[in-house]
Amino acid sequence: MRSPLTLGVDIGGTFIKLGLVQESRILLQESLPSASFPHPKALQDGMVEAIRSLIHESDRSIGAVGIGIPGLVRYPQGMVHSCVNLRGWRHVPLRRLLSRRLRLPVWVDNDVNVMTLAEWKYGAGQGAKNLVCLTLGTGVGGGLVLEGQLYRGKQGSAGELGHIPLSEKGPRCSCGGMACLERYVGNREILQFVRQRLSKGVKSQIPRLIDHNLARLTPEVIDRACELGDRLAQETWEWVGTRIGLALTGVVNLLNPDRIVVGGGISKAGHWLLDPMRQTVRRRAMQGLKAVAIVPAALGSSAGLIGAALLARQEPGR
Amino acid sequence: MRSPLTLGVDIGGTFIKLGLVQESRILLQESLPSASFPHPKALQDGMVEAIRSLIHESDRSIGAVGIGIPGLVRYPQGMVHSCVNLRGWRHVPLRRLLSRRLRLPVWVDNDVNVMTLAEWKYGAGQGAKNLVCLTLGTGVGGGLVLEGQLYRGKQGSAGELGHIPLSEKGPRCSCGGMACLERYVGNREILQFVRQRLSKGVKSQIPRLIDHNLARLTPEVIDRACELGDRLAQETWEWVGTRIGLALTGVVNLLNPDRIVVGGGISKAGHWLLDPMRQTVRRRAMQGLKAVAIVPAALGSSAGLIGAALLARQEPGR
Repeated sequence: MRSPLTLGVDIGGTFIKLGLVQESRILLQESLPSASFPHPKALQDGMVEAIRSLIHESDRSIGAVGIGIPGLVRYPQGMVHSCVNLRGWRHVPLRRLLSRRLRLPVWVDNDVNVMTLAEWKYGAGQGAKNLVCLTLGTGVGGGLVLEGQLYRGKQGSAGELGHIPLSEKGPRCSCGGMACLERYVGNREILQFVRQRLSKGVKSQIPRLIDHNLARLTPEVIDRACELGDRLAQETWEWVGTRIGLALTGVVNLLNPDRIVVGGGISKAGHWLLDPMRQTVRRRAMQGLKAVAIVPAALGSSAGLIGAALLARQEPGR
Repeated sequence: MRSPLTLGVDIGGTFIKLGLVQESRILLQESLPSASFPHPKALQDGMVEAIRSLIHESDRSIGAVGIGIPGLVRYPQGMVHSCVNLRGWRHVPLRRLLSRRLRLPVWVDNDVNVMTLAEWKYGAGQGAKNLVCLTLGTGVGGGLVLEGQLYRGKQGSAGELGHIPLSEKGPRCSCGGMACLERYVGNREILQFVRQRLSKGVKSQIPRLIDHNLARLTPEVIDRACELGDRLAQETWEWVGTRIGLALTGVVNLLNPDRIVVGGGISKAGHWLLDPMRQTVRRRAMQGLKAVAIVPAALGSSAGLIGAALLARQEPGR
């Protein structure tokens, strides 16, 4: 028997990706620019239209729709309380609204939760009973699989690794807290770290790589400089990895997980970033727990789509 | 039908407590000084003898024995890998050894895990689906109930709240880590905090309460001084509570629990300690999560015994 087909939607700040998915294979995919949908109603209309046309195009029937959205989602109700990168998303009962219009079961969860599901089932987290998934980008997020189940916590907000405080005092965070991990290792902060060092006259090949235009600095440029043996670039990932390792030390001592999967943009830095994370955890976490595997994510930018479709497949009919 | 009777054993650094327990009622109890058992074999002999005599005295049959021990325990095997306050406990298969001698099912778990079970089932954690339990003493420990089940993690070590790092640098911890919560709010560190302030000439009623003999300083003395309006005493609990609140902020953002139960010796300080913890979490944790209830433990020093007996009752026959 063919495993059932579901439709996944990965709502991001830049693109809305939709795809027909069978297990971890994306059979048919579409992408819409998020900016074309200035408010939740417009985005819903756009999704309904795109979903119908994908189903029509494929000429197959689908069992359910799963959606990952970057915000605070009450699960399983599918009520979106707030959304990080999209305007106007306050208390939108997305699941109810869409399932009514599509006449299909719809499931809605936080985007990092569905990515975690995907990495756990098909990616670098396969076989782990207790898994921590960390996503690095402009924001720093996380998801938890505990005792073989996605763990959501009371309000569905569990896994906020980016908001573990690293010290008593430190920079204010958009979450209302202070000295959160994200305030040190979010993309903006990493670029700021490099710019500051450069402005202090630290020697580096980075300026040459971006024609001395610091506005063109990206994490990928830092990666390229690393490979060229640039000391500042390497130190940057060391600094970032050490800070992530500090937060993970607390997570490891608290949750004693089997494995930690690291994904998101800057995880492309590979061992330059992962090694200092591993070293910090090995140096600081408790005896017996410190051997936890820290591995790169395997599914890349498809994790959100695959995970959203997986969510829909895992859930009962309605 | 009467709920079945089980026997709980609470192994501590000072006393070994044994009791026949029905639900949360201790029907018959005995206490042995830990110092009389210089090595694991002697302690096993002592426990077997005391258990037999308690059963004999009660003239009732018991279903199983549950043991809480302050160490790293592999569960459900009941293999004690190491033990914090007792000598010679390296890789002792306690469950197997005792069940053979007693001809009864025996279950062995970490002492904080069984306390957590007790508070969750009969104490301040009742009804919580996701519960964090924090125990404050010479060591700082913790236990987690997640999705209505005690969460142990891969090696059975989960819940080590005392070993969440509070900053990048800080005092070395006995766990091998650095700047762990325990190194700021363990009993020794709290007394040290007060002594340092006094030696700097901070005015306080504390010296008078202990006849100017600083060796007699205890957390209870700080509590008494608090009630007398002593500023140093109040500041001490504020300082301690703020540090605990900092660690809990990370835990709340990571686990989004329903409730946090605080037990152990210094939790007797009550609101002097709990209020700064609550304020810190309310100030720093993420919107929506910060409303988590932080409440004092309810079962006091009986939690270990009741929890050990409960562990035995919850488990299948053998």
